[in-house]
Amino acid sequence: MPRNIALVLSYDGTDFSGFQIQKNGRSVQEEVETALAKLQGRPVRIKAAGRTDAGVHAVGQVVNFESDISSLPSERYALALNALLPRDVRALRSREVSLSFHARKDALSREYRYYLLPQQPGYPFYLRYSLQLKTMPDLGLLNSLAAPIVGVHDFETFTAAGDPSFSRVREVFSASFFMQPPFLVFKVRGNAFLWRMVRSLLGTILELERRGASSGEMEGLLSSKKRENAGATVPPTGLFLHEVAYGPEFGI
Amino acid sequence: MPRNIALVLSYDGTDFSGFQIQKNGRSVQEEVETALAKLQGRPVRIKAAGRTDAGVHAVGQVVNFESDISSLPSERYALALNALLPRDVRALRSREVSLSFHARKDALSREYRYYLLPQQPGYPFYLRYSLQLKTMPDLGLLNSLAAPIVGVHDFETFTAAGDPSFSRVREVFSASFFMQPPFLVFKVRGNAFLWRMVRSLLGTILELERRGASSGEMEGLLSSKKRENAGATVPPTGLFLHEVAYGPEFGI
Repeated sequence: MPRNIALVLSYDGTDFSGFQIQKNGRSVQEEVETALAKLQGRPVRIKAAGRTDAGVHAVGQVVNFESDISSLPSERYALALNALLPRDVRALRSREVSLSFHARKDALSREYRYYLLPQQPGYPFYLRYSLQLKTMPDLGLLNSLAAPIVGVHDFETFTAAGDPSFSRVREVFSASFFMQPPFLVFKVRGNAFLWRMVRSLLGTILELERRGASSGEMEGLLSSKKRENAGATVPPTGLFLHEVAYGPEFGI
Repeated sequence: MPRNIALVLSYDGTDFSGFQIQKNGRSVQEEVETALAKLQGRPVRIKAAGRTDAGVHAVGQVVNFESDISSLPSERYALALNALLPRDVRALRSREVSLSFHARKDALSREYRYYLLPQQPGYPFYLRYSLQLKTMPDLGLLNSLAAPIVGVHDFETFTAAGDPSFSRVREVFSASFFMQPPFLVFKVRGNAFLWRMVRSLLGTILELERRGASSGEMEGLLSSKKRENAGATVPPTGLFLHEVAYGPEFGI
């Protein structure tokens, strides 16, 4: 009797070409599927909540796969996998879920966090997981610039060329900045995100803050639906897929 | 008029074959000397307080070198170098010191810290900089096992084969364990250390703790001066050169 196992993953994205399997370069998906294939003795495919880009990290990526080992309690999958995975990918926990569960389709929301380091000099251990800023921005202004993106909007302005989505309409539930010393963190939660949308939003907000722009200007950029109006996309180093939320019926 | 510049460095040792230049593999020394050569327009040699091994990190390595750029204030060297160094090596600060200053010979003490992670599972960001333990050791017992190493001793038991030192006598000023959540930290300060001495001491203490040995047993190992009595050397991942101390006359 096959079972459906959900797995929460954390990974250091630095040395990956992205989550998804690709011809050239190392992918998280391939590492996890290779480890699962060793465990189950046959090829295994995983489905993931979010396909993070090259260099993007995760502390709460969720994937699911079909298991046919009846002797291994579902909670033990995480431990068994960690013995087979490289050190930069870790299985945090595993649970059996209903057969219909799909990590991407059933996700109610995703939360991303971007770590900024507003200090000089930065330790290399910090720089691997953040973007260094030359000065400390105005926290109040950052938050007022982030406010307009909350709600249901067409995020065309903040899409990268090549995003395959049919609709650019997404719902952002919250967007804010806060200090977590030594980091300044941008936290954004939404039902789903377009390709590079978080990095484009943050790059634009940082540029607007530098020239003391108002939240009205951010509203204008959003409603313009013109990609060329967005600021420069920030690099992936500071970005983490923080959490994926599901309905309580799945018990993840 | 040549000047002598001291530089405090931090580096992530993971992707280095060690501090010292070697035929095969990337070294911190080579990265720093290459950056300095670009800055000064001629080859530059640096002297370092401690030659850390492959995989060992630093938050307070000290090096010095001769400068012939009169136009660059000594404090600006750190900033100028960071623009030329790879991201995993950072110059934290720079100062002009007396011409006689030598980063290794004038060091009064070195402090190393080793980060242990007594929790399951560990995030990959932690595992890159620590050693995971399956259980939380007895902190009181660890500290009583560390106590005998304080003082002037012949540390032959805790030397790696191949250490070139003429004398194995060193003075350890302090050695203790403390919690810095989520890490359990081993902190040891001494005038100097033998090759792999910190990692051998820690490996031995952890083994003794697991079988509930007494500090008398640790004293016996130390006075035996037999390398085969030491426990397994712990891996370099968790080890940091934390600080090097000099007399106040150098103003570093």
